[in-house]
Amino acid sequence: MTEDIYDIDTSSVPRGDGIRDLTLTDRWNTPLGKPNGGYILAAMLRGLGEEMGVEDAMVAAVTYLASPETGAAELRTTTLRRGRRVQTGEAALWEGERHIAQLQASFGARSGRSLELGTPPDLPAPDDCLDPKDFPGAMPASTIFDRVDYRLGAAPGWALGTPSGDPTSELWQRLAGGREIDLPALAFLCDSFAPPVLEIGAAQSMTVQLTVHLHRKPVPGWIATRLTTRHVVNGFHDEDCELWDEAGNLVAQSRQLAMLL
Amino acid sequence: MTEDIYDIDTSSVPRGDGIRDLTLTDRWNTPLGKPNGGYILAAMLRGLGEEMGVEDAMVAAVTYLASPETGAAELRTTTLRRGRRVQTGEAALWEGERHIAQLQASFGARSGRSLELGTPPDLPAPDDCLDPKDFPGAMPASTIFDRVDYRLGAAPGWALGTPSGDPTSELWQRLAGGREIDLPALAFLCDSFAPPVLEIGAAQSMTVQLTVHLHRKPVPGWIATRLTTRHVVNGFHDEDCELWDEAGNLVAQSRQLAMLL
Repeated sequence: MTEDIYDIDTSSVPRGDGIRDLTLTDRWNTPLGKPNGGYILAAMLRGLGEEMGVEDAMVAAVTYLASPETGAAELRTTTLRRGRRVQTGEAALWEGERHIAQLQASFGARSGRSLELGTPPDLPAPDDCLDPKDFPGAMPASTIFDRVDYRLGAAPGWALGTPSGDPTSELWQRLAGGREIDLPALAFLCDSFAPPVLEIGAAQSMTVQLTVHLHRKPVPGWIATRLTTRHVVNGFHDEDCELWDEAGNLVAQSRQLAMLL
Repeated sequence: MTEDIYDIDTSSVPRGDGIRDLTLTDRWNTPLGKPNGGYILAAMLRGLGEEMGVEDAMVAAVTYLASPETGAAELRTTTLRRGRRVQTGEAALWEGERHIAQLQASFGARSGRSLELGTPPDLPAPDDCLDPKDFPGAMPASTIFDRVDYRLGAAPGWALGTPSGDPTSELWQRLAGGREIDLPALAFLCDSFAPPVLEIGAAQSMTVQLTVHLHRKPVPGWIATRLTTRHVVNGFHDEDCELWDEAGNLVAQSRQLAMLL
């Protein structure tokens, strides 16, 4: 049996009393050399769901409290409410004496009406797009770029040293090698690419808080991703993400508040 | 000294150990006869900030766990992290043995760059708009409509029995009588009007989770409000809100996940 790196690196082991042990590996590091926030969120969300014995994550809100390090960590989970349609819990991620992140998440099966008023990104087919690996030196060194396959309609302005001025990015993403994308992985994919504020000349950005709505599991294939920042206010900015599957369904949407660095 | 009803009804009294007593009054009831979720959020956010001794709320994420009742309630607050730029805490609202809502919020003064790519709603001046009070019977009975002054460009389709099919609403709002709007009041104003899904024939909607970014304190005057739902998926939907002040600045934006009833 071969286990995918995604499965290994987002797993946690119950120790009793709602506490789980996990390891943040160095395989999901950002260019700043720290575990990616989306990876941390996926591991926390998966661990909380397993501890509560619930599936179908529908919304997750995480606040990042301190800079994470790779290594051993502890997930302290609490069930807040088991409703008929919605089950809600909380998880705190600790590394030693440092409280790294705090998650609130709700789970539950959905049923009822659907109506879609948005449209997916207008991207060329993935095979007709650019693979950033074909542009040596354009993407910064970062292990997360080995965990995600990216396909871009065009090389980003910031990667060429000429930011476009328009903080919007559209691209295809999937887990490396095409591994099945579950709901926690959608939460990861909302925060797995470069922030679009790089296109307005920002050096970097750090997430304070991120909320993701997980609408449905995607059909197999690539995920069309739209990232956009509309409002930069006194050093802080929003960043919205929409994820669409190859069948043209919205599968997740997120918004984060982040700080310009 | 006269105290405004907003100040009275969002106040809480410290009891020690991070616990505060408050009363949810019947003056902010929705047409369903329950305290409005935005009112609950404003009271929780104000109480948490006072308990932590911090100002400048910047982001608040609340999950609604059980249906609130009017009456005595308890706010159990915890400080999660006091960073240099951002301070984060948590607050649980309890009514007796019922856990009603759970809030995560971050506070901190902002400084740095600003860039606005959005535009405020294109509304006639408040004095040239309709006051729903001039349409007896059009708005459902609800005490919250005595706490907020609304000005609408046109009567909503749902209020006339002819939903427009377009789940977007734009309107002016302010606290009744023009009372100063603080940051917790902005959180309230994100959820103080009828949900735009009424325009697609929904009977009602109940918020599961709401996250609001509080960007800046508004200049005195009316708040231009844009409410929109874009994605209804299997009985659940998003609802985005933008709040703009009369100087044309975005002052807050929120997104909620809600359940069709």
